[in-house]
Amino acid sequence: MLVLPIDQGLEHGPVDFFPNPESQDPSYQFRLARDGRFSAIALHIGLAERYFHEYAGEVPLILKLNGKTSIPSDAQSFSPLTGSVEDAVRLGAEAVGYTVYVGSPAQDRDFEQIRQVRSDAERFGMPVIVWAYPRGEAVAKKGGKESLYAIDYAARVALELGADIVKLNYPVASEKDKESPPPYNTLSLTPDAAFRKVVLSAGRALVLVSGGEKVGDAELLTKVRSSMDAGATGIIFGRNLWQRRYEEALALTRELHAIFREYAEPAA
Amino acid sequence: MLVLPIDQGLEHGPVDFFPNPESQDPSYQFRLARDGRFSAIALHIGLAERYFHEYAGEVPLILKLNGKTSIPSDAQSFSPLTGSVEDAVRLGAEAVGYTVYVGSPAQDRDFEQIRQVRSDAERFGMPVIVWAYPRGEAVAKKGGKESLYAIDYAARVALELGADIVKLNYPVASEKDKESPPPYNTLSLTPDAAFRKVVLSAGRALVLVSGGEKVGDAELLTKVRSSMDAGATGIIFGRNLWQRRYEEALALTRELHAIFREYAEPAA
Amino acid sequence: MLVLPIDQGLEHGPVDFFPNPESQDPSYQFRLARDGRFSAIALHIGLAERYFHEYAGEVPLILKLNGKTSIPSDAQSFSPLTGSVEDAVRLGAEAVGYTVYVGSPAQDRDFEQIRQVRSDAERFGMPVIVWAYPRGEAVAKKGGKESLYAIDYAARVALELGADIVKLNYPVASEKDKESPPPYNTLSLTPDAAFRKVVLSAGRALVLVSGGEKVGDAELLTKVRSSMDAGATGIIFGRNLWQRRYEEALALTRELHAIFREYAEPAA
Amino acid sequence: MLVLPIDQGLEHGPVDFFPNPESQDPSYQFRLARDGRFSAIALHIGLAERYFHEYAGEVPLILKLNGKTSIPSDAQSFSPLTGSVEDAVRLGAEAVGYTVYVGSPAQDRDFEQIRQVRSDAERFGMPVIVWAYPRGEAVAKKGGKESLYAIDYAARVALELGADIVKLNYPVASEKDKESPPPYNTLSLTPDAAFRKVVLSAGRALVLVSGGEKVGDAELLTKVRSSMDAGATGIIFGRNLWQRRYEEALALTRELHAIFREYAEPAA
Amino acid sequence: MLVLPIDQGLEHGPVDFFPNPESQDPSYQFRLARDGRFSAIALHIGLAERYFHEYAGEVPLILKLNGKTSIPSDAQSFSPLTGSVEDAVRLGAEAVGYTVYVGSPAQDRDFEQIRQVRSDAERFGMPVIVWAYPRGEAVAKKGGKESLYAIDYAARVALELGADIVKLNYPVASEKDKESPPPYNTLSLTPDAAFRKVVLSAGRALVLVSGGEKVGDAELLTKVRSSMDAGATGIIFGRNLWQRRYEEALALTRELHAIFREYAEPAA
Repeated sequence: MLVLPIDQGLEHGPVDFFPNPESQDPSYQFRLARDGRFSAIALHIGLAERYFHEYAGEVPLILKLNGKTSIPSDAQSFSPLTGSVEDAVRLGAEAVGYTVYVGSPAQDRDFEQIRQVRSDAERFGMPVIVWAYPRGEAVAKKGGKESLYAIDYAARVALELGADIVKLNYPVASEKDKESPPPYNTLSLTPDAAFRKVVLSAGRALVLVSGGEKVGDAELLTKVRSSMDAGATGIIFGRNLWQRRYEEALALTRELHAIFREYAEPAA
Repeated sequence: MLVLPIDQGLEHGPVDFFPNPESQDPSYQFRLARDGRFSAIALHIGLAERYFHEYAGEVPLILKLNGKTSIPSDAQSFSPLTGSVEDAVRLGAEAVGYTVYVGSPAQDRDFEQIRQVRSDAERFGMPVIVWAYPRGEAVAKKGGKESLYAIDYAARVALELGADIVKLNYPVASEKDKESPPPYNTLSLTPDAAFRKVVLSAGRALVLVSGGEKVGDAELLTKVRSSMDAGATGIIFGRNLWQRRYEEALALTRELHAIFREYAEPAA
Repeated sequence: MLVLPIDQGLEHGPVDFFPNPESQDPSYQFRLARDGRFSAIALHIGLAERYFHEYAGEVPLILKLNGKTSIPSDAQSFSPLTGSVEDAVRLGAEAVGYTVYVGSPAQDRDFEQIRQVRSDAERFGMPVIVWAYPRGEAVAKKGGKESLYAIDYAARVALELGADIVKLNYPVASEKDKESPPPYNTLSLTPDAAFRKVVLSAGRALVLVSGGEKVGDAELLTKVRSSMDAGATGIIFGRNLWQRRYEEALALTRELHAIFREYAEPAA
Repeated sequence: MLVLPIDQGLEHGPVDFFPNPESQDPSYQFRLARDGRFSAIALHIGLAERYFHEYAGEVPLILKLNGKTSIPSDAQSFSPLTGSVEDAVRLGAEAVGYTVYVGSPAQDRDFEQIRQVRSDAERFGMPVIVWAYPRGEAVAKKGGKESLYAIDYAARVALELGADIVKLNYPVASEKDKESPPPYNTLSLTPDAAFRKVVLSAGRALVLVSGGEKVGDAELLTKVRSSMDAGATGIIFGRNLWQRRYEEALALTRELHAIFREYAEPAA
Repeated sequence: MLVLPIDQGLEHGPVDFFPNPESQDPSYQFRLARDGRFSAIALHIGLAERYFHEYAGEVPLILKLNGKTSIPSDAQSFSPLTGSVEDAVRLGAEAVGYTVYVGSPAQDRDFEQIRQVRSDAERFGMPVIVWAYPRGEAVAKKGGKESLYAIDYAARVALELGADIVKLNYPVASEKDKESPPPYNTLSLTPDAAFRKVVLSAGRALVLVSGGEKVGDAELLTKVRSSMDAGATGIIFGRNLWQRRYEEALALTRELHAIFREYAEPAA
C-alpha cells in the first residue's frame, strides 16, 4: 500500500513547496499518484473538489477530514473537520483520513469528533485511516512527540478508538526519553525494534509508515524495508516524493513498488 | 460476577503490558475471559470491533463508552465518549460502561454526558455500569482520590445518577484523610468497615470491586472475600489477572469462582 | 404544601447522613414521606428509578432535574442536568425541580438550560419548581449568598424565568450586608420583614421555604409560622426532618401539618 | 411609539423598585401600560406567563427574549435566552426584543444567538427589536458605553444584523471620549447632534430612545422632543415612568402622547 | 469581476463613513453598484433585507455570512455567522462570502463553521467567496498579517477548505518579515512578484484583490493592472470607491472597467 498525501499545504503552508516549485500546483501530486500507480492520494476537500475529477478512475481518493494550520501554538493541538464522511461518499473516496493528537489536552474534543467520524464511516462502509500523532504540552513533558513512549501509546489509542488503518511515525530515541514514564525511560531499543513494538501496539489495525521530512534515497529505502519487516502494510510518503523532481520521484516510486513486490511474494 | 476489563491500553497506554508481554495482544484477554468463564469482558469500541466477533457467544461484552489517555493533567478530569449505546446494541453487548470523575471541575460536562448515555441505555434496556472514580484538583485537596470521603461520595453519586452497577475502589486510609471534611477527617475505620460504608452509600446499585494495581495472590483473595462480606456483587479485576501468565491467571480465576460459589450457596 | 427533599446525597455527599445513619438508605425518606403524608418527595433520577416504584401512588414525586457535587469550587457554580422532563413524565412525577444559581458567572448556561426545561415542561403541562440560590464569586463580593440583596434578587429572577413555584432561603443579616448595593447595604429589616420582602419579589410564583441545616424544634416551628405569615405556600425541609430519628421526625411532621391547617382554615 | 419595559427586575434586581414600592408588583406596569395606552409592554417570559393573560387584547406584548443579572462582571457581557420566538408566538406577542452587547468579547456567541432569533422571527413574521448596548472591557477602553463612538457603532451593528427596530441610548460626552478612535476622540457635538448622528447610523431600522435612569419631568420631555426631532420613531421609558406614583406616571404619559401627536400631524 | 463591499459598517463601525458622509446611507453603495455596473455588491443580512429589494435585478448580491466588530481584541479572531446560506437563497444572492481568519487560535471553530457553510452552499449550488485574512496573536509573531508568509499561507488554506473564489490582500514587505519562517524570512520579492506567488498558492480558486484603505487614483490603477497581470480575476474595492464623492467614484469605476476590457480582449 503506497499513499501519497498532499495535506501539507494546509498543515505547513506553501513553505513545503519551495524545494520543488512545481509541487505547488496540486496537479503535480495528482499526476505523480497516477503515473506512479499509487494506492491512493490523500487530501482535503478543497483539492478534491477542484482537481480530483480529472483523475477519477485513475487515482483512488482518501479524503482527509480534519486538519489545521501550523501557525498557532501546538500546546493544545486539535484538528477541526474540513470535510465530512458524506463529502467523501459524494466524491467517490475509498477511505477517509483523520488526525488524532494523542495526549493533547484537547483530547476530549478529539475523541468526540473521531467517534462521530467513525460512526458515519461505519454507516457508509468507509474505512477510517487514523493519523496517530502524539502532540501537545503534556507529550512534550514526557519525552516528546517522537519518543517511543508517545508513539507506542498513540498506536494503541488508534486501535482502541476504532482505526482500520493507522499512520505512524518512526520513534526517534533521544535524551528526552529519560522523561518518559518507566519502563520507557530506561529502554534502549534499536530503531527497528522500537518500530516493531509500535506495530504490535496497533494490534489488528493495519500500519502505514509516515515519511516525515525529506531524506536521501538510500535512507528512505532502508526505512521502507525495515518498516515492512516490522509488519507495516505500506507507506504514506509525501514530501519524500513530491519534493523531488518528477522523473526522480517516479524512479523512486518504482523502487518502492519493487520492494512491495518482494514482500507480497511470500503471500502468493 | 467476574468482569475482565481491558481498557488500560487507552487509559494507561501500552505500559501496562510490560509485566506480561503476551497481554499486549487483546486476544490474550479474550481467551482468558472465555477460558476463565468470566461474566463479561469490558473494553472500548476499537477492540470490540476487531476482536469480539471471534468470541461472540462465548464471552459476554460490556462496551466501555468513554475513556481518555493519562498523558494530560488530571486536574480537570473528563472522559469523552469513544462509542455509543447504539454501538453497544449493534455489537451485541450485555451492558455499557461509563466513567464518572466525581468531584472534577468538569463534572458539568460529565453529568450531561452520562445523562444522555443513561437515557439511551434505558431506551434499549441496556444496563449501565458506572466506574465511579473521584478525581481532579478539588478531590486532591480534600483527602485525595483514595480517601473514604471521596469514594463514599462517589458511590452515592453513581446511585443518584442512575447507575445499575457501580465499580468502586477500596478506600485507602492515609494522613491526607485529615484534609477531608468532617466527620471523615476524624473517622478511623478498618479497610473492611470503610468498604462496607461505601457499599451502603451505593444503595440499590450493585457494587463491583476494582482490582487496581497488581498485588500478591493471598492479598487479592483476602480482598475478594472481604468485598463479598461487605455486600459486593462481584469483582472487576484486570491487571491482577492478565498481568499474570496464562495458566497462573486461569488458576487464580478458578479460586475466584470457588469463593463466589461459597457466597452464592446461602442464596440457594 | 410540605415537600421532603433528598438530593443532599448528591449535593453534599453521604456526610449529611452521619447524624442519623438510617437516613443513608433512601427508603428512609420514602417511608417518612409516605407516613408523614408529605405533598411530595424531591430527588434525582437514580433514586427515583430504584426506589420510587414501591411508593408510587402513595408519595407524589418531584423529579429534581439538575445537581452537582460540592467538591469543586463554587466560584462559577452551575448545576448540570441529571434527568429530563421526559424522565419525569415517564416516572409519573407531579413536577420537576431545577436549581438556578443566581448571580453565578455561569448564568448564561444556566438560563439556557432552564429555558429548555421550562419549554419541555410546558409541553407536558408539568410545573417547574425553582431552587433559587444566589451563588458564586460575584455574589460573595456583594453581601454573600444569605444576604437579603442576593435572595431578594434570586426570588425575582425565578419569577422572570418562569418558575411556577420557587424555593427560597431565609435571608440572614450580617456585617457583609454592607457590601450589598444600595439601598440594601443600609436596610435593617427583621428576619420576618426580610422574608416578606422576598416573598413579594417572587410575585405570583408560589414560595416554598427552605429548611437549610438542622435546627431545634422550637426554632423550626417559629420559622414555619413566620414563613406562612409572610405569604409562603409551604415548606421544603430535608435535613431538619430526616436527620431526626423516625418517630421524632413523624411527630414533628404532625406539628407542621397542624400549623398548615391553621393557615388553610381562613381559605375555607 | 411608546413602549413600557419591565425587564429591570431581571437586569438590575428588585433594587429598582425601592423608589416606588408598588412597582414591585408587575401588575403595576401592566395597569400603567393599559391605562396609559402604551404601544406595548416589554418583558420576559415569566411575567408574560403569569400576568399577561389578564391584559391580553388591552396591552400589546413585546416578549424580551434574552437577559441576565447584573451580579457578575460585565467584562465579557452576554445575555442568554430566557424565551424563544415560539414562546412569543404562543403568547400572542407583537414583537420580540433582543439585547446585543456590541463590542463584548462574547460577540461571537451573541451574533450566533441573534442570528437564530432573527431567522425564527422571520419565519413567523415577528419584528425584532434590538436593544443595542455597547458593553464589555474593550468598550470601556475606547470611551465607554455612553460614548458617541460606542453608541454610533452599536446603531450600525443593529442595522447590519437585521434589526427592525433598535433601542438606543443618548450618547453622553465625557473626558473618556479622548480614548475613542479618531475622529470620535476630537468630535465635539451637542447632545442633539450626537443623537442625530446615531439615528443616521441606524439607517432604515426604526429608532426607539431609551429612558435610562429616572430624571426630572422637564428634562425628560426635552429629551423626548429632541429625540423625535432627530428622527426617532418613539421612546421606550421604564424607570422614568413606573418609578413615579401611578397618577403622576399617567399624567406624564399623557404629555408624551401630546408630543407624539405633534410629530404625527405633519404626516397626515 | 468588480465587487463593491459594504460590510465595513460592521467590521470597522461608522468611522469609515466620515471621509464621505453620504456613504453612511447604504443606498449610496447600492446606487454606486448599479450605476457603476458592478459585478456584485457584498454585504450582511441587515442591509440586504432593508435595501436590496429596491435594486434586485439591477445589482447582483453577495451575502456576507460572517463578521464581527473591531472593538474587542484581535488576538483570538473569529467571525461568527450573521446570516445563513438559506438567507442567501431566500434573498436571491448570487454567492455567499465568508471570512476565515487564517492562523487564529480560534481556527478550530472557524474551520468547523466554514465547513458547514460550504456544505450548505454546495447543496444549493451557491459559490463561496472566502475573505482569507491572516489574523491573531500567532500571526503577529511570525511577520504579521500583511507578510508574504501569512498571505501566501492564507491563499492555500482557502483553496484547501474549498473556496470557489478567494479575496486576498497584497503582501506588504517589512522588517517584520524576518520573523517569518524560512525561507520567507530571507525572500526579497517585488510587490508584484509577491502577489504572483500568492495567486499561485490559491490554485484553481479564483482571486479577487482587496482594496484596503483608500489610496490615490494612480496608485490604485497601478495595483489593479499588476493584480490582473498576476492572474487575479477581479477586484473587490470598497473604501477606495465609496469614500470618494459619487461622480468621482463613478469615473474611477469607468477606468476600472476599461482595464478589465483590456484583459478580457485576449480571451475573445
